[in-house]
Amino acid sequence: MPDLPHVVILGGGFGGLWATRALATAPVRVTLVDRTNHHLFQPLLYQVAMAGLSSPDIAAPLRHILRGQRTVTVRMDEARSIDVGARRVTLAHGSLGYDYLVLATGARHAYFGNDDWARHAPGLKTLDDALHIRRRMLEAFEAAEREEDPVAQAEWLGFVIIGGGPTGVELAGTLAEIARHALPREFRHSDPRRSRIHLVEAGPRVLASMPEVLSERALCQLERLGVSVHTGQAVTAIDAHGVDLGERRIDARTVLWAAGVAASPLGAQLGAECDRAGRVKVECDLSLAGHPEVFVIGDLAAITQDGKAVPGVAPAAKQMGAHVARAIRARIAGGATTPFRYRDYGNLATIGRMAAVVDLGKLRFSGAPAWLFWLWAHVFFLIGFRNRIVVMAEWIWSYFTYQRHARIILGRGEDSPNRNQD
Amino acid sequence: MPDLPHVVILGGGFGGLWATRALATAPVRVTLVDRTNHHLFQPLLYQVAMAGLSSPDIAAPLRHILRGQRTVTVRMDEARSIDVGARRVTLAHGSLGYDYLVLATGARHAYFGNDDWARHAPGLKTLDDALHIRRRMLEAFEAAEREEDPVAQAEWLGFVIIGGGPTGVELAGTLAEIARHALPREFRHSDPRRSRIHLVEAGPRVLASMPEVLSERALCQLERLGVSVHTGQAVTAIDAHGVDLGERRIDARTVLWAAGVAASPLGAQLGAECDRAGRVKVECDLSLAGHPEVFVIGDLAAITQDGKAVPGVAPAAKQMGAHVARAIRARIAGGATTPFRYRDYGNLATIGRMAAVVDLGKLRFSGAPAWLFWLWAHVFFLIGFRNRIVVMAEWIWSYFTYQRHARIILGRGEDSPNRNQD
Repeated sequence: MPDLPHVVILGGGFGGLWATRALATAPVRVTLVDRTNHHLFQPLLYQVAMAGLSSPDIAAPLRHILRGQRTVTVRMDEARSIDVGARRVTLAHGSLGYDYLVLATGARHAYFGNDDWARHAPGLKTLDDALHIRRRMLEAFEAAEREEDPVAQAEWLGFVIIGGGPTGVELAGTLAEIARHALPREFRHSDPRRSRIHLVEAGPRVLASMPEVLSERALCQLERLGVSVHTGQAVTAIDAHGVDLGERRIDARTVLWAAGVAASPLGAQLGAECDRAGRVKVECDLSLAGHPEVFVIGDLAAITQDGKAVPGVAPAAKQMGAHVARAIRARIAGGATTPFRYRDYGNLATIGRMAAVVDLGKLRFSGAPAWLFWLWAHVFFLIGFRNRIVVMAEWIWSYFTYQRHARIILGRGEDSPNRNQD
Repeated sequence: MPDLPHVVILGGGFGGLWATRALATAPVRVTLVDRTNHHLFQPLLYQVAMAGLSSPDIAAPLRHILRGQRTVTVRMDEARSIDVGARRVTLAHGSLGYDYLVLATGARHAYFGNDDWARHAPGLKTLDDALHIRRRMLEAFEAAEREEDPVAQAEWLGFVIIGGGPTGVELAGTLAEIARHALPREFRHSDPRRSRIHLVEAGPRVLASMPEVLSERALCQLERLGVSVHTGQAVTAIDAHGVDLGERRIDARTVLWAAGVAASPLGAQLGAECDRAGRVKVECDLSLAGHPEVFVIGDLAAITQDGKAVPGVAPAAKQMGAHVARAIRARIAGGATTPFRYRDYGNLATIGRMAAVVDLGKLRFSGAPAWLFWLWAHVFFLIGFRNRIVVMAEWIWSYFTYQRHARIILGRGEDSPNRNQD
């Protein structure tokens, strides 16, 4: 086995995990490196942030998923640098030589040069981010309940979500549902139903990657849930008490960031050309120009197809993972690689209870049927038999009770009364 | 309603929550203050630490539990000081005057003057503690897998649990089960079955509060699970690489503290006599000498009955909570209070899969029947219909699959490769 070619895969998200699985029967040994111990089903991360699901519902240990694939070693570690000349990756603990490298370290939310906004407007990419947002959201309702001054109370009941893409829409819709339905009977001095939830989008419409008619339907559904949508308005400042949209001010103690991503900084170390978001421009087979043994996939890869950028979504990452596994097999067998082609099966976004939009090309629909379709698709693609059953049960439960079982504040935030407690 | 006497209850554990519930029909308004937003079912906290249950499985938001009790206000806040003369509690955010005060802020683990041990040997009292221990435990197996030096690897596979009470026994037994059954197939370079799990107890036997025969049976069951038990040996030093027991050294990168508790520092502010652990010596009706309007209950109260200290266990705290509710009703009605009497229904401790001991006075048993009895008792007493079903399902699942679904590393530890990542 030590004589087999060594494939190092950095990142255990959709791209890296699908590449690893597709190499199951290839004559290689694989080392999959991730800085966490789990694969995360990111499309449902907003549900953890909004206290509807627990972390283990949408995450599974990578070594558990891959336990039967004996040629794979999972290593919890963090890549610090890549030397493509020496074919070696330096990790936080040691280093690894490779014959083939698959870089799948994804993207992180970014503040477009306004890094001081990070403190006031947390983003959502990891489970830790989700638990942080959950704490901020639940603590805002707690602070409103304690507050005697009505102006300050209204500020605590103000929420701004920045970014009208799928994550922003999901957060805004779910938050509105929590404020209207899950909490009201439980507070004595404040009324969560008086929460004001704002969704801010700099572009002309929400869900810009969808056809215009579905953006309009999403807007209607958001407004019906009680979300104030501000399109065509860019954020100019964020502080602890609210957000400035040019001349306009929105008072809100809780601001969430769903507006932009930047690629993993590892991409820049390859010496290849990157786009503005830091994504690596790859060859048509997803390899690096001049380095046929290095592949870049998922959110970190910049590739266009028919004049349009391949989107940074889970299906694209999975398809790229499977493609590089085929490319590595072809190289080992001495054959040629084929160009990657993204197959777009459709696009869907959820908004809230019985509210979603679905675009399957010829077939477009919204409302309750779209929501049921979204539910089925997401639960179906969840990894692990157990998780599927549990998540389905959670949703049936919360659909009928309006309750969100994970309303537990964990950790100690800056604004938390727990701070400095031991 | 503003004219009704105001009862302030500090702490939403078993004592405080049971007092609140028992005041449901009393002519009072109640404010329940807790620094977290949830009631925690502490007897199952070790299962969260050992990755068998998720946080929301054993915690429920206090406001959700009490939503129907309209005379109760739940306030997430932290008591900073108590002025018994002015009948006022100062909180982190504002203050509260009271007519009756129930102090139920419990205890915290303590290191008997060796505060520097806290860094190396985390204790287990809150959900945050449990997630911290979970991370340390799972990261140790990850580090062992990365380690090429066999001596260093063995150090990562060494675990010491200090304290042979119920928590220590539960942690040691469950950890042995994880190392032997849940993990082995998933590692390539290390063998979790080679873990050495040590349980250290300064006294002559484990589970000292149990009859001697049950301590012996617990010892047998622990050893059968592969735990090395060291009784009569006091810890003299703890560092990042192990533990000293006088002359003897145990190498271990993971050390857990289950050896002692100290009462909440609020007790000392009452001006009453405290015992060595900081617990407040109370009158026979649980009130404070000279202050019949102040009550101290649960782990914070020091009271003896028939020459023995009432133990710091959940049933005692619940009974005290119900008792002070009766005492407050009696005072308001102009009547006299009665002395508190603790009814001991029995004592039980779990060790691991099908291993437990039960002492019901005349009836004592161990092994599989004791484990099933323990399981039934704990699931039965869990708050909330939903939690009972979910926890039961988790256990049936993990009993047959040997899997622990919550094996997700959250947060960033000192030793974590995630540190300094954004």
